[in-house]
Amino acid sequence: MSASTLLDDLRAVLGSDAVLTDPDLLRGHERDEADLCVAGTPLAVTRPRSTEEVAAVVRAAGRHGVPVVPQGARTGLAGAANAVDGAVVLSTVAMDAILEIDPVSRIAVVQPGVVNAALGAAVARHGLWYPPDPGSWESSTIGGNAATNAGGMCCVKYGVTSEYVLGLEVVLASGEVLRTGRRTAKGVAGYDLTRLFVGSEGTLGVITEVTVALRPAPAESLTLVAVFGSTAAAGEAVARIAAQGLSPSLLELLDRTHLAAIEAYQPMGLRDDAEALLLAAVDTGPRAAADLAEVAAVCEAAGAEEVYAATDAVEAAALLRARRLAHPAMERYAAEAYPGGNGGLIIDDVAVPRGALAALLDGVARIAAECEVPIGVVGHAGDGNMHPNIVVDRADPASLERGRRAFDEIMRLGLELGGTCTGEHGVGLLKREWLAREIGPVGVRVHQAIKAALDPAGLLNPGKVL
Amino acid sequence: MSASTLLDDLRAVLGSDAVLTDPDLLRGHERDEADLCVAGTPLAVTRPRSTEEVAAVVRAAGRHGVPVVPQGARTGLAGAANAVDGAVVLSTVAMDAILEIDPVSRIAVVQPGVVNAALGAAVARHGLWYPPDPGSWESSTIGGNAATNAGGMCCVKYGVTSEYVLGLEVVLASGEVLRTGRRTAKGVAGYDLTRLFVGSEGTLGVITEVTVALRPAPAESLTLVAVFGSTAAAGEAVARIAAQGLSPSLLELLDRTHLAAIEAYQPMGLRDDAEALLLAAVDTGPRAAADLAEVAAVCEAAGAEEVYAATDAVEAAALLRARRLAHPAMERYAAEAYPGGNGGLIIDDVAVPRGALAALLDGVARIAAECEVPIGVVGHAGDGNMHPNIVVDRADPASLERGRRAFDEIMRLGLELGGTCTGEHGVGLLKREWLAREIGPVGVRVHQAIKAALDPAGLLNPGKVL
Repeated sequence: MSASTLLDDLRAVLGSDAVLTDPDLLRGHERDEADLCVAGTPLAVTRPRSTEEVAAVVRAAGRHGVPVVPQGARTGLAGAANAVDGAVVLSTVAMDAILEIDPVSRIAVVQPGVVNAALGAAVARHGLWYPPDPGSWESSTIGGNAATNAGGMCCVKYGVTSEYVLGLEVVLASGEVLRTGRRTAKGVAGYDLTRLFVGSEGTLGVITEVTVALRPAPAESLTLVAVFGSTAAAGEAVARIAAQGLSPSLLELLDRTHLAAIEAYQPMGLRDDAEALLLAAVDTGPRAAADLAEVAAVCEAAGAEEVYAATDAVEAAALLRARRLAHPAMERYAAEAYPGGNGGLIIDDVAVPRGALAALLDGVARIAAECEVPIGVVGHAGDGNMHPNIVVDRADPASLERGRRAFDEIMRLGLELGGTCTGEHGVGLLKREWLAREIGPVGVRVHQAIKAALDPAGLLNPGKVL
Repeated sequence: MSASTLLDDLRAVLGSDAVLTDPDLLRGHERDEADLCVAGTPLAVTRPRSTEEVAAVVRAAGRHGVPVVPQGARTGLAGAANAVDGAVVLSTVAMDAILEIDPVSRIAVVQPGVVNAALGAAVARHGLWYPPDPGSWESSTIGGNAATNAGGMCCVKYGVTSEYVLGLEVVLASGEVLRTGRRTAKGVAGYDLTRLFVGSEGTLGVITEVTVALRPAPAESLTLVAVFGSTAAAGEAVARIAAQGLSPSLLELLDRTHLAAIEAYQPMGLRDDAEALLLAAVDTGPRAAADLAEVAAVCEAAGAEEVYAATDAVEAAALLRARRLAHPAMERYAAEAYPGGNGGLIIDDVAVPRGALAALLDGVARIAAECEVPIGVVGHAGDGNMHPNIVVDRADPASLERGRRAFDEIMRLGLELGGTCTGEHGVGLLKREWLAREIGPVGVRVHQAIKAALDPAGLLNPGKVL
């Protein structure tokens, strides 16, 4: 059957307004925000409005043997949402209804296109909280968050997306609709299919509904910054905070490169002469002041040159805003680091056991020197999850090559330290080889067996993860 | 090949002392503690001492086409550890080493035969805590806890076993050794195979090593009991506690039948004239007294006749001990309820959204009346996870039939209320039909496809779950 027949089929089930083929629009849906990843031009972008329409898209594509690439807001950083040539992009943006909020059972049921921030605002009206807060929270969707098992800053205390997904509705490669999980606080009925689909990056099915657990809104938090003369000392402070049994609700690290980039991007009054800055918060209510003092004492004992507690919520919010600027500031810094604005960032993502954080930070500095590329480090220190950001000249193949080598060396170091090749950004296209190294040949075979069992024709988001 | 050849193969790899064929011992390994489940007589009980020996057992059994039934302490309540005729029982009790405790990364690595209480004691020496506390915690193994995704009393605040399992080593049906997961706080590398194996009841592989997350030891808890004139009022109190955003570290319900059974078994001074008793604890440190007062106020507003706070840790421990006696006390009560000690219990396990708890409790009372069987209810009210315990006369087929009917009616009601057929005991043999109803035909097909992908010959714990 010809491609036009597939378009006809898609228009027949969705209507023409939900089957888009405008070349500019297709180009705009080729890729997410990842670097170093290939992307193709899709045949069409579809915007189904219901589970039935998603199933119809998957069945139609299946009949024609055409791949389906699910997309949310395309804010991912691993290429998991990148299109392949001739594929049908299945965008969930039109499925953006919050179907239910139940304050007693503390759950919400949402369509996949609901934006993370919109869910947060809706449940806040019930005094509730949906914790996962990826950097993209203002634009990324719950469906995409679930498909990639997104992390964020509050995960150090409150956990990642998968800990909040109780159940899913998923359209399988066959077009059948599977319901997984439950609405209850506990449940052990059968294999944990919910967790199998969360983080599977659209390779096993298309998520069409998500049931999430909510928490009571946390107490107001108290915040401090600690300034260090070396990143390794900051890493040591993080290890000691964990070893003392303190549970900060936020524990972020910014290195000198990021501090300078942020100050250049938007002056925030950060100590940009410091080698590293830890940003810590506690939200333990009446115990918060004592807990913050303990965190401060641990930082000082680990060699902090200065520890400064925010005097009020306004100042604390400013510190958090500075941290949230790290990514755009570093993008600007990278662009301006080379002539013609050709500088760019390779954004990496690695997690190690908390006790190995100082060794990771030391190692990244060594790799930057060896590969002769600037690398800034920022991230979720309390989880051992760091983002080394490698600055390259996109116009210079030798610079790109050095950047790629640094990227690989960081991955190798992370695994050597007992870590994982991705703490929260996912595998997508970017980390496939490193996933294979991390999980080994038996792990790869098990992944392939599960993929083949659920998507025998290999049409769901092909080439991702595996 | 003959069965003796398989025994020869097993003895060749394990030595004769780890391949047991004594008929009494075989009989002792036929079943776990579940009712209503069939069990067969195994060919042999093997006690491998290492991952390599487990793999050798699985490979030898595979060559002979003989099923392998993994067993821990056989304290399960769904028949998931029950042998089938001629099978090789693979007992993990000889693999009982705690391999590592890392206080900075807050993880422990253990062999599957480590007893839950032994792990708890070992990590307590580092000021750490392994929360999951199934009723069997003094005898059940971490491998069994992981294979069944065991729950317990602290789950209401701290979550079930799966939330603490970071990684696994698993021997697959092929005899290959798979490593899943990670040692890091975060990680999204590939499909969540760890969660797929946790709770899969030995049907997808044999767990040979478990990496668990630990928490800092919690603050001392404060405890209260609230006495209610109806179970539904107690259920209403639970819903209000959740709706107010309170996070008790324990929230258990005992009904009149259980209170009377406990007082008869060992007088604890409980109000055995009450219709229901809630036992609640908070462990929020300096906020604990205020939080406990809030729980008390909510109970009173929901109609509690009396609320009594434990005056000290000794009294609190006595209340917890009384709760822990519920199971043996109810066994005794059931035995004595019929002539000749022929009375027995059908222990059920159902979970509903917290908001539906009162409706569940009302419904169970109605079912008891309709089916003309005594049913006592006890359980983890804060999770909506209850254990209706059905009292039957084992010598009377009509009584057994009425009990079985009540069991089915409770399952049906649980699903109608948006719940699950098992909150923590698992599917095993006991709940297979109800699992199929709960997950539907598409869910069953996905389960079967995954089982076939990982165990094509169907030799790992056959007949369980599916």
